[in-house]
Amino acid sequence: MKKRLLVATGGGDCPGLNAVIRAIVKRADQETDWEVVGSIEAFNGILTDPPQVVRLTNRDVSGIQNRGGTILKTTSKGGPFAWPTQHPDGSWTLEDRSTEMLERLVDPLHVDGVISIGGEGSMDIAQKLYEQGMNVIGIPKTIDNDLTSTDVTFGFHTAVEIATDAVDKLITTAASHNRLMILEVMGRHAGWIGLSSALAGGADVALIPEIPYDIEKVAEKIKHRMANGRGYAIVVIAEGAMPVGGDQTARKSDQIGYGNAILGGVGHRLLSELKDHVDVEARVVILGHLQRGGSPVAYDRILATQFGVKAVELALAGDYGKMVAYRTPHVVSVPIKDAINQYNYVSVDSDLVKTARGIGMCLGD
Amino acid sequence: MKKRLLVATGGGDCPGLNAVIRAIVKRADQETDWEVVGSIEAFNGILTDPPQVVRLTNRDVSGIQNRGGTILKTTSKGGPFAWPTQHPDGSWTLEDRSTEMLERLVDPLHVDGVISIGGEGSMDIAQKLYEQGMNVIGIPKTIDNDLTSTDVTFGFHTAVEIATDAVDKLITTAASHNRLMILEVMGRHAGWIGLSSALAGGADVALIPEIPYDIEKVAEKIKHRMANGRGYAIVVIAEGAMPVGGDQTARKSDQIGYGNAILGGVGHRLLSELKDHVDVEARVVILGHLQRGGSPVAYDRILATQFGVKAVELALAGDYGKMVAYRTPHVVSVPIKDAINQYNYVSVDSDLVKTARGIGMCLGD
Amino acid sequence: MKKRLLVATGGGDCPGLNAVIRAIVKRADQETDWEVVGSIEAFNGILTDPPQVVRLTNRDVSGIQNRGGTILKTTSKGGPFAWPTQHPDGSWTLEDRSTEMLERLVDPLHVDGVISIGGEGSMDIAQKLYEQGMNVIGIPKTIDNDLTSTDVTFGFHTAVEIATDAVDKLITTAASHNRLMILEVMGRHAGWIGLSSALAGGADVALIPEIPYDIEKVAEKIKHRMANGRGYAIVVIAEGAMPVGGDQTARKSDQIGYGNAILGGVGHRLLSELKDHVDVEARVVILGHLQRGGSPVAYDRILATQFGVKAVELALAGDYGKMVAYRTPHVVSVPIKDAINQYNYVSVDSDLVKTARGIGMCLGD
Amino acid sequence: MKKRLLVATGGGDCPGLNAVIRAIVKRADQETDWEVVGSIEAFNGILTDPPQVVRLTNRDVSGIQNRGGTILKTTSKGGPFAWPTQHPDGSWTLEDRSTEMLERLVDPLHVDGVISIGGEGSMDIAQKLYEQGMNVIGIPKTIDNDLTSTDVTFGFHTAVEIATDAVDKLITTAASHNRLMILEVMGRHAGWIGLSSALAGGADVALIPEIPYDIEKVAEKIKHRMANGRGYAIVVIAEGAMPVGGDQTARKSDQIGYGNAILGGVGHRLLSELKDHVDVEARVVILGHLQRGGSPVAYDRILATQFGVKAVELALAGDYGKMVAYRTPHVVSVPIKDAINQYNYVSVDSDLVKTARGIGMCLGD
Repeated sequence: MKKRLLVATGGGDCPGLNAVIRAIVKRADQETDWEVVGSIEAFNGILTDPPQVVRLTNRDVSGIQNRGGTILKTTSKGGPFAWPTQHPDGSWTLEDRSTEMLERLVDPLHVDGVISIGGEGSMDIAQKLYEQGMNVIGIPKTIDNDLTSTDVTFGFHTAVEIATDAVDKLITTAASHNRLMILEVMGRHAGWIGLSSALAGGADVALIPEIPYDIEKVAEKIKHRMANGRGYAIVVIAEGAMPVGGDQTARKSDQIGYGNAILGGVGHRLLSELKDHVDVEARVVILGHLQRGGSPVAYDRILATQFGVKAVELALAGDYGKMVAYRTPHVVSVPIKDAINQYNYVSVDSDLVKTARGIGMCLGD
Repeated sequence: MKKRLLVATGGGDCPGLNAVIRAIVKRADQETDWEVVGSIEAFNGILTDPPQVVRLTNRDVSGIQNRGGTILKTTSKGGPFAWPTQHPDGSWTLEDRSTEMLERLVDPLHVDGVISIGGEGSMDIAQKLYEQGMNVIGIPKTIDNDLTSTDVTFGFHTAVEIATDAVDKLITTAASHNRLMILEVMGRHAGWIGLSSALAGGADVALIPEIPYDIEKVAEKIKHRMANGRGYAIVVIAEGAMPVGGDQTARKSDQIGYGNAILGGVGHRLLSELKDHVDVEARVVILGHLQRGGSPVAYDRILATQFGVKAVELALAGDYGKMVAYRTPHVVSVPIKDAINQYNYVSVDSDLVKTARGIGMCLGD
Repeated sequence: MKKRLLVATGGGDCPGLNAVIRAIVKRADQETDWEVVGSIEAFNGILTDPPQVVRLTNRDVSGIQNRGGTILKTTSKGGPFAWPTQHPDGSWTLEDRSTEMLERLVDPLHVDGVISIGGEGSMDIAQKLYEQGMNVIGIPKTIDNDLTSTDVTFGFHTAVEIATDAVDKLITTAASHNRLMILEVMGRHAGWIGLSSALAGGADVALIPEIPYDIEKVAEKIKHRMANGRGYAIVVIAEGAMPVGGDQTARKSDQIGYGNAILGGVGHRLLSELKDHVDVEARVVILGHLQRGGSPVAYDRILATQFGVKAVELALAGDYGKMVAYRTPHVVSVPIKDAINQYNYVSVDSDLVKTARGIGMCLGD
Repeated sequence: MKKRLLVATGGGDCPGLNAVIRAIVKRADQETDWEVVGSIEAFNGILTDPPQVVRLTNRDVSGIQNRGGTILKTTSKGGPFAWPTQHPDGSWTLEDRSTEMLERLVDPLHVDGVISIGGEGSMDIAQKLYEQGMNVIGIPKTIDNDLTSTDVTFGFHTAVEIATDAVDKLITTAASHNRLMILEVMGRHAGWIGLSSALAGGADVALIPEIPYDIEKVAEKIKHRMANGRGYAIVVIAEGAMPVGGDQTARKSDQIGYGNAILGGVGHRLLSELKDHVDVEARVVILGHLQRGGSPVAYDRILATQFGVKAVELALAGDYGKMVAYRTPHVVSVPIKDAINQYNYVSVDSDLVKTARGIGMCLGD
């Protein structure tokens, strides 16, 4: 009987997930004594009755590297340590079913190693399960690119490309109508998508969570751009951006990173704040879920493929408890426990920020 | 001294406007005794002091056919019959300055013919000016494709392409998360963009202004699609869609067509209406101004070029008071007065609707 | 037992084929007493042993409307009237197996109606089979848009979009390097793709099969464009374009239309012809199979869906021997026998040609 | 009088050049005592009579970051050390006019610093001019990403994206027709584009200059992929790929790197080599100049902007003789003399190659 790898995708969907799954299956297929199964909806597929765990062959993953989403489906709710359970009286509680999950992996699933692709929540769970004895390898998934343990994560460049395309589109309308256009993009805690798409698209203002903005300075910049015959301005604002004096602890206190949430609303908030400072015709566009979908750019497909291959090689070597990561130009591994809760924020001293300031972009401060 | 054509773009921006402008300039350039000027911000450039009317040469329009927006800028406010005028006491009124505008066209502008590219408002103005003696040719501009006098208008296919791309993107997220995704697209009065993008993208439900929707039938369809292991559903809703019993006169009473407005909000309204009927995790995306921007698709560039060339040829022939139009496969002209106020709604008997029903799409009725 | 529709795709692949297949399956699924099967590799699946005919359900066609190619595979070789057959002595001949094919459709396949999606060759075969008693509906497939019986065919607009994108890309290189760039596109017999992409992309010269070109006039135009500080020029040439005096009968004599062939080479031939007339640094790009692949544009997905639905409705009505077609804005049907051998060439008197000449494009004459 | 920076773009065009120019102008605009001029066609604009050197303001560079090519035009011929000069007898020789160029930079051009954006040839020239006393900063431009002194260069990711899109398109045709498709991409000396696009697109075989290929192993892989019901295969081949025993010195002896040349032909050569080993219907597509054109991806726009800003800052600091480079995540500088002739080849031990082998891709060895 072949050894068996189980793959699961957890948290918000992210361009590149299917490329990871494909790489895992194709890498394992090079080994005559290994096979791959997938758990449907993160680890939930293991705990449902009957288990929803499917065999994955080369044929199943053929060509999926250019499709968004995940063929294994995902979930951002619950997990083995907080499994929604209904009681005889009809009430629901969250129960710890991790022990049962580990047992099921042995029998009936006969799983030798687990590859968990997911965000912070998934890595937390992976680490706990590893400590309980599960052979697990982690693959980080955060479209926000906000992990210190890896130079970059898949999905991020696709999101930046989509947001940049949106800036390109809005500029033509802004210029034709002499308007201010505000584009709200992802980034609750880290402003990588916002700053990058503002740079690539040529926005005048980029507001990100790391730099509280002074509304008067934002208004001043907009006024300056609207004047002198140019007549329009573009603002990119990340969903976690806040004015000076905003509740910064709020931003940092809840579960962060990994881009699971689409909060929305900061673009309209900014517009109402601006009303007192600048008289301008303006429109807001919330990019929302469009940033997560569609075919991944080549960069993300390649990185995802590298991560998938590396994860299998760690499993083959029995080197569990590790998360794959990218340290230019090497694919490496780090202990999962060292990777979680280590966030990569945009530093005000970074070269990216210096570049933005260098071309005269207003960052709100 | 050369004869002079003046071009102006009015109303909301629309992919293809620059291709029209380029075609006009390049066509006129074939005639040794004609030249082209452009009025900035629709006809406003004629009435400002000094006039903002610029010479347009081949060099000015080189390569602009693949850019969104309009190099002549546009405005959807005012016009010569309702010109915002400030009085000595500081108050503002709207004044009729059409006579002065006609005089300025003669002196100092020396204009022999005017090509007005615009929506319903622009065509109304053009007709009135024609009746006052102006040599005017109209080119219809409505991204909503809602005119009976022409088979199709430029900008429409670009908007459908962008909306379809959005459906493609949302499907991957919907499928990965077992969600309902609602996409709100343009179309206050006519549902062409909504129905077309729903068909091209493979949505389950399309709600358009022409067919009031029964929320129970919509909910039923969504429940059916969520069940049976498929687990997700996609709704495309046009901004003018209404439930049965909604105020249909409201939709028809205000200035319509030509896609100038982005109302927003019907997607969220639909979601709240659904809450009582179906228990589902859902997200709304409002496509908004993204539909108007960016590079036009080839189809729109070609149609826009055909319209621009035809308009110049009508001017050369002195055949004024006409609007260009497309009757497959011919570029024709119709009297402006016969073209305005003739709206092209999606007919429930049309083949497009039959196709949608034929593949099982729910149209809300 | 349910009635059974068999679908087959023949000839060169074309963007939109999968959207047709999906529409057929989804339309038939609305009828409780019908089901759909697909023959692999055109009609070949019926004649192989065992037959390669597969059941097609909604699940099989879910989401395929945005993918290029055909899930049923295709073939442009042979067919039931000329089936490659190996004899005991090892030699091969082409045998007529149409009678056997009709028998197999009855038993064991139990097929009540056949929908054949294909080009001229497929329609010829369909008509012959119809005359032998097969219940067949035709759906035209020609990326070259060269049929008179329908205003437009699916795949064409996708090809034009891809070719236009290529012109857009080549212009930036041409302008940066002061070069002549020659783009060779599809079109052995009809120049629709070439002329359309030249118009949309802003090429200086478009050479198409319908208008033999005078190399001196082409050279003159190129010289004119290279001069005066502009410094570059773009030529789009269809693979069937010929110089004045070229063997025009050759173009018309072999099997035409339907875009099955990628000849190649005319771009380089043009370049060598130009060498004697103009001194310029030049490059040739052959677009080739890139024009056939990838996701169809929205327009083609919609048209393909309309064709698929209509074909099923004709079958349900027992109205066989017909081919679906588009007459703006209606989906109609015409007898297959009236549709074949009726080619739609670019007319020199057409509005499209007039538009090209109107903006100063050189068509070689 | 303001201090003056002169910018020039040399060598083959590359997506991102305009973003660099824009960044330079916008960065210099932050300094009240600096201004920017551009030399047309690399340094040639300095030496022509009269000089073609133009003032560059914010308005000139507004929005150009999303356009391919270079507004300053480029040239890959000659340069100040080998200036084509015609003599009284009509003959031409290449003359060293570097001294005159340096004099002209002082008078009449009043240039204080020069930023040279270009490939290896341009950097060689820059270094020589620096040694003669010119204040020069270099910005590397190689679409092939083949420099050791920088982690990555702009243009590369755009080329990979375009090549990947081509693989995506060809796969649908290959699968529909059971064909072998061969895609020839750039890469005379380094296989980064070939290997990356093969990985992202899911090709079966990638042949690159660094790994001489054994035609029997390539044929074996193709046969294996065609069999077992899959029926098709995709090969990506870089223009510098060679069979085992091919003349490797030829590859390394002529001017390399920087992607200036489009050789063409290796795809067809491979096909003819394959004929003896595998019986398959095949097609070749040469991507050619399509890889250089069009709008840069966001990644390249950002990197280009960072390079432009850094170059100006080096000039402001008087830190001449340096070339900007990227060392993740920092923008750094290195002496030009240390950067030239240092090529970054794909190493057979690299993680990228291991990933390719890991998923079963054939690299020809």
